[in-house]
Amino acid sequence: MIIRPAVESDLPALMRLLLADRATLSDELPPDSDCYLHALREMQDSGVSCTYVAVADEAVVGTFMLTFLRHLMRRGSRVAIVEAVRVDSAHRGRGLGTEMMRWAIGESRRRGCSVLQLTSNLARKDAHRFYQRLGFRGTHLGMKLSLS
Amino acid sequence: MIIRPAVESDLPALMRLLLADRATLSDELPPDSDCYLHALREMQDSGVSCTYVAVADEAVVGTFMLTFLRHLMRRGSRVAIVEAVRVDSAHRGRGLGTEMMRWAIGESRRRGCSVLQLTSNLARKDAHRFYQRLGFRGTHLGMKLSLS
Repeated sequence: MIIRPAVESDLPALMRLLLADRATLSDELPPDSDCYLHALREMQDSGVSCTYVAVADEAVVGTFMLTFLRHLMRRGSRVAIVEAVRVDSAHRGRGLGTEMMRWAIGESRRRGCSVLQLTSNLARKDAHRFYQRLGFRGTHLGMKLSLS
Repeated sequence: MIIRPAVESDLPALMRLLLADRATLSDELPPDSDCYLHALREMQDSGVSCTYVAVADEAVVGTFMLTFLRHLMRRGSRVAIVEAVRVDSAHRGRGLGTEMMRWAIGESRRRGCSVLQLTSNLARKDAHRFYQRLGFRGTHLGMKLSLS
């Protein structure tokens, strides 16, 4: 398995992975809609966020998004955020998610980040245990305000 | 009160506000350390994140940081994150925090964001109620991995 930044040709498989997750599905468009292409281009060109894909046997089997933000606190260090973590349901239970997160942790260290953070739906106790095993500690309440 | 992006001359007051918060204080340097100046410059020039100050009678009485990130989900829309929200203890109870957050909500709408999100320490029940009154819903567990 390799992990690399997503490119435009990954988009159909990538969007299928993202849109398969019913917990966050909300009024989305078909995976080949222009809005996703434009968003991917902007993100991958930003230098701030990047969507990565995990590829095995030439198929996209996982994805996650990493963002690196300069903060004032923690001596003006960078903070990394990981989001939109998905593993293809046909490939779960093989340690793929762990491998992806270890890669994300390594990349965050390489970029000099003082902390890697994420939010996970309160109902997903199995996901919380997964992240706890990797060393994450659940210390905050994640709150959202819908603007649409 | 006015709200505007922080500039370098705000830094002493701004850092005093940020470093007064013992819940997130961790091995910081004196407020006039170069690391904070460099971080502020990078942030304010990034076009992605911005630290704002609330100013009353020419004094910095509050601060918050806003970040706007392009995502693939939600039709490729932007997501706004608000962090590092502080109100000077001498100015609490006057609705200043509400005014700052209403400004942040308005700015997030102006930038076309589909959602505004934040994390708040699990122990801060009063902060959770504050954000709930503004319409935020606590749906996620915020998890952190220290890399330093």
